[in-house]
Amino acid sequence: MTEAGGTGDRAAAVIAALRFDKDGLLPAVAQQHDTGEVLMLAWMNREAVTRTLDTGHVHYWSRARNALWRKGERSGQEQRLVELRVDCDGDTLLLRVEQTGVACHTGQRSCFFRAAHDGALVTIAEPLMSPGELYGESGH
Amino acid sequence: MTEAGGTGDRAAAVIAALRFDKDGLLPAVAQQHDTGEVLMLAWMNREAVTRTLDTGHVHYWSRARNALWRKGERSGQEQRLVELRVDCDGDTLLLRVEQTGVACHTGQRSCFFRAAHDGALVTIAEPLMSPGELYGESGH
Repeated sequence: MTEAGGTGDRAAAVIAALRFDKDGLLPAVAQQHDTGEVLMLAWMNREAVTRTLDTGHVHYWSRARNALWRKGERSGQEQRLVELRVDCDGDTLLLRVEQTGVACHTGQRSCFFRAAHDGALVTIAEPLMSPGELYGESGH
Repeated sequence: MTEAGGTGDRAAAVIAALRFDKDGLLPAVAQQHDTGEVLMLAWMNREAVTRTLDTGHVHYWSRARNALWRKGERSGQEQRLVELRVDCDGDTLLLRVEQTGVACHTGQRSCFFRAAHDGALVTIAEPLMSPGELYGESGH
């Protein structure tokens, strides 16, 4: 999973502690490091973890596109890694990040912009950008 | 998934917006509502979502035990639901909760008590209780 040239060294000890699922993935929760805001949940494989630790830029695995992606590669809305945390049983990651702009492909700061209130699902925040400004839906 | 006697009404509109995976589950991130601390990630099925909304006490689905559980039913470390949020594509939940005591079966406040620092995985918090005080590992 590591590339030639010594990259991946920083990730080896972390990778060893992780329990990927049968598809080689685990969920990663991205949280803005200073405000505590939960921004999104996406999936990582070994390569995504390795590249994230090596470069400091958060990478995920797209289950829809079956491809590695660097967050913000199309939209510019990057996530710089501040700290990668691992849960008690090694099957979930918490990424403490510095989010550029918005995390959600809808233009919302956070993907969690709807809430259950009195039996209805209501929108609790307004988008900060339009999807068009994010260069299409694949900017997620 | 609802019980007799009218329970489940509060959950119907939320359930309709959710996209459960092929096993009928989706990941739920629990976050302490006032501090922003991410406590844990666990899994919910339709019944767990319904019971959580109906009772105000967070319920999950245990993939290991193949059973519904109410958080804290053995350990006493309950989660009272403050707000249930749904992400943009309806396949992840964010539970804003009031956590009694500790969220993790290890006695740590949060399950995310290890972090990658300079290529090593280090413990960044100390447990607040012993697993024994939590009545065994199944108190998670």
